[in-house]
Amino acid sequence: MKITAILDDIVPIRSDIRNAVIDFSQMTISIVAVVTDVIKDGKPVIGLGFNSNGRYAQQGILRERIIPRLLAASPDSLLDEAGTLDPFKAWAVMMTNEKPGGHGERSVAVGTVDMALWDAVAKIEEKPLSQLLAERYRGGEPDSSVFVYAAGGYYYPGKDLDGLQAEIQGYLNLGYSTVKIKIGGASLDEDLRRIDAALQMLDGGQSLAVDANGRFDLETALQYARALEPYQLKWYEEPGDPLDFQLSAALAANTSLPLATGENIFSAIDALNLLRYAGLRPPVDYIQIDPVLSYGLVEYLRVLDHLTRHGWGWRRCIPHGGHLFALHIAAGLGMGGNEAYPRVFAPFGSMGDTVQVENSVVQPPSLPGIGFEGCSEIMAHFDAMLGSL
Amino acid sequence: MKITAILDDIVPIRSDIRNAVIDFSQMTISIVAVVTDVIKDGKPVIGLGFNSNGRYAQQGILRERIIPRLLAASPDSLLDEAGTLDPFKAWAVMMTNEKPGGHGERSVAVGTVDMALWDAVAKIEEKPLSQLLAERYRGGEPDSSVFVYAAGGYYYPGKDLDGLQAEIQGYLNLGYSTVKIKIGGASLDEDLRRIDAALQMLDGGQSLAVDANGRFDLETALQYARALEPYQLKWYEEPGDPLDFQLSAALAANTSLPLATGENIFSAIDALNLLRYAGLRPPVDYIQIDPVLSYGLVEYLRVLDHLTRHGWGWRRCIPHGGHLFALHIAAGLGMGGNEAYPRVFAPFGSMGDTVQVENSVVQPPSLPGIGFEGCSEIMAHFDAMLGSL
Repeated sequence: MKITAILDDIVPIRSDIRNAVIDFSQMTISIVAVVTDVIKDGKPVIGLGFNSNGRYAQQGILRERIIPRLLAASPDSLLDEAGTLDPFKAWAVMMTNEKPGGHGERSVAVGTVDMALWDAVAKIEEKPLSQLLAERYRGGEPDSSVFVYAAGGYYYPGKDLDGLQAEIQGYLNLGYSTVKIKIGGASLDEDLRRIDAALQMLDGGQSLAVDANGRFDLETALQYARALEPYQLKWYEEPGDPLDFQLSAALAANTSLPLATGENIFSAIDALNLLRYAGLRPPVDYIQIDPVLSYGLVEYLRVLDHLTRHGWGWRRCIPHGGHLFALHIAAGLGMGGNEAYPRVFAPFGSMGDTVQVENSVVQPPSLPGIGFEGCSEIMAHFDAMLGSL
Repeated sequence: MKITAILDDIVPIRSDIRNAVIDFSQMTISIVAVVTDVIKDGKPVIGLGFNSNGRYAQQGILRERIIPRLLAASPDSLLDEAGTLDPFKAWAVMMTNEKPGGHGERSVAVGTVDMALWDAVAKIEEKPLSQLLAERYRGGEPDSSVFVYAAGGYYYPGKDLDGLQAEIQGYLNLGYSTVKIKIGGASLDEDLRRIDAALQMLDGGQSLAVDANGRFDLETALQYARALEPYQLKWYEEPGDPLDFQLSAALAANTSLPLATGENIFSAIDALNLLRYAGLRPPVDYIQIDPVLSYGLVEYLRVLDHLTRHGWGWRRCIPHGGHLFALHIAAGLGMGGNEAYPRVFAPFGSMGDTVQVENSVVQPPSLPGIGFEGCSEIMAHFDAMLGSL
C-alpha cells in the first residue's frame, strides 16, 4: 500500500471568547487528509486529522517540511511488517533533518499528520481507533465509557455572573456534571465571585475545576491556592507558566489542591522534565498533555512510558484539546478521561452528531477509525478540501 | 514614524554538509525587511533580518500571525517615548494571542523580525548596533574586538582525515585560532582519530572544541567525556538532548571538561530551567543561546537577566548562529564571543566583505545598524526581495 496524496487546508475559528491570556477570534485550525490506495467499500481509505484546539494552523511547516518528506519517502519505508502504514516509521520520516529542542509548532504539524495516519490505520483494520489501541497496547478491550468534562467559563466580553450561570446550566443540560471555568482574567475577588456563582449551580455529586492558563507568578498562585482550598475543587489548572517547574514544585509543596497541567508541554523530553522537576504528586494531580499538540500519538506513547517509570498511573491523564482523537486514546489506553468543548472551538470539539453525555460520561464512537464521519460539521470542512482531489 | 511595509522571503541554503543529527541540504532561511517612513540620505530606513542559521524558514508563522499583528497595530503602540520604534513594544504586539509554552518555530519567526527592528532602530540613530546596545545597556562603549571561532568539521560525505585537516588549515589561513569540529556522527574511535588529526594542525596557542549536537545518552556522553578529558579541549558541546537537564547535571558532576550548550534553548523560561537544573558551572561552562532562534534580542535580554541572577557573567555567553546580529550583541553587551561559519551557511555567515579575522578576533562593522549592507552576498537576497517594493 502507499500514500497517494496528502491535502491540507486552514479553517478559521470564529469566536468571541477569551481566557486569561488570549483572544480566540483569530485562531485557526489546520486540517489534513492522508489519501491511501487501500480500497474499502469501493473508495480509497483517507485518514483525517486536525491540529487540536487552542493553537494555530501550521500550513507553512506542513507544506515546507512535513508533507514533502512523507511524499518523498519510499512507500515501503512507511510500512510495518504486515505491509500496512506504520505511524512510528512515518513519524521518523516526518522528523528527518529536525534538530532536538525547540518543541512547538512543528510538534503541532507532526501531530496533525499523526492523527490522520492513525485514522487511516484503524480504517484499514475496520476498527474504531479505541479498539485498535486497546488491542495493541493493553492486550484487551477499550473502556466502554470515558469521563468527560465541559471546559468553558471563559471571559466573554461583557459577560456577568448570570451569564456564567446560564452557560453552566447549559453544560448540565447537556449531561456534564464536571465543569471547568477560567480564572486569572480578573481580580481574585471577582474570580471568587465567579466560583461561588458556578458552585451555586452544582449539587454534591457535581464538581468544578478552575484554569488560570499559566498566568500567575508564584505569589499570586499561592494566594489563589489559599483562597481556593476551602472549595473542594476538582483541580487548579496551570497556575503558572507551564514550563516554570520550580513554581509548580513550590506550589505543590504548599497546597492540598489537586493541580493539573500539561496542555502546553509539547514533547516527551519536556514531559520528562515536568515529571522530574515540577513536584507533581501521582496520587493527586492530573496530566493534561494533548497528544496532537505534542507530536502525535507516537510521541504520546513515549510520554506514557515516562509516566509509568515515574510512578504515574495512566488514569491520571485527562488530555487537553476536546477532540475525538483523544477520546479514542483515553478509551483505548485506559486513561482518566478527556476534555470536552461543548460550546467553544466549534465544530472541532464535536464528539459526534448523536453522542450523548450522561453524568459526564460518553461512549466513544463505533465507526472505523476516529469517526469524524459521524461529525457532520467537521466533515463539511474535510469534504470541501477533498472536493479538490 | 511608522512601519509602512514588512516583506519576507524564503532563501534556500544549498549545502552537502551533515552533522551528527541532520543534513543541511534541505535547509532554508527566512529573510525579512521592515520598511519605515523615516528618511535618511533620501531613502526610507529599512531594517533587515534573517532567522539565524541551522533551523528553517518561518513563512507560515510570519505571514499568518507575526507580520499581520505588527501591521494591524496602531503606529503609536510601537513607539517609545522619544517617538522611535520600540522593539519591546513591537515584541509584545507580535506575541499577542500567543499562549505560554511551545517555544520553537514561533520563537524563530519573532526573532527574525526582532533582528530587523533592531537594525532599523540603530539605522535611525545612525549608529552601529553594537554602539547603541553598549550605550543603552552598559552605559559605555562596545568592545572594540570580539572573539570568534570557526565552526566546522562536519561529516562531509566521503570526507577523510586529510579532508578534515585541509578544512582546518583553511580556517587557520582565515585567521581563526579556535576551531570546532563535530563528533557523534561516527564511533568514538573514529571521532578520536578526527580529534587527533585536528589537534595536529594546532599549536599551543590554538584550541579545539567538539560538538555532539545532542546525540548522546548519558552513558555515551560520559564515555566520550572520559576519552576527551586528556585533550585540553576548549569545550564539549551539546553532549545530550538539549532539554535533558538531568543528563547535563550528571555529566557536569563527573567531568572537568568545560561544557557548552544553549543553541536549542529557545526562550527565557527554558533558559531559566537550564540554569536551575542542568548543573552547569558559571566559572567553567559556556552558554550558547542564539538571540534570533529564541525570540530575538528582547527575549535575550531577559535571558541575560536570568544569567546575572544565577551568578553567571555575560562573558560566559558565546552565541550560536554565526551571524552579524550576534556579533553586535557580543560587542555591545560585552559577551565572551560569537560563533562564525566561515564555510557553511553561506552567505548568511558573512560578517562583512572586508572583515579580517586575526588570532580569532574581529572588529564589529562600523556601518549604521547591523551592517548587512557590507555583506554583498547577503544584500543580493535582500535587494532581490526589496526590488518588489
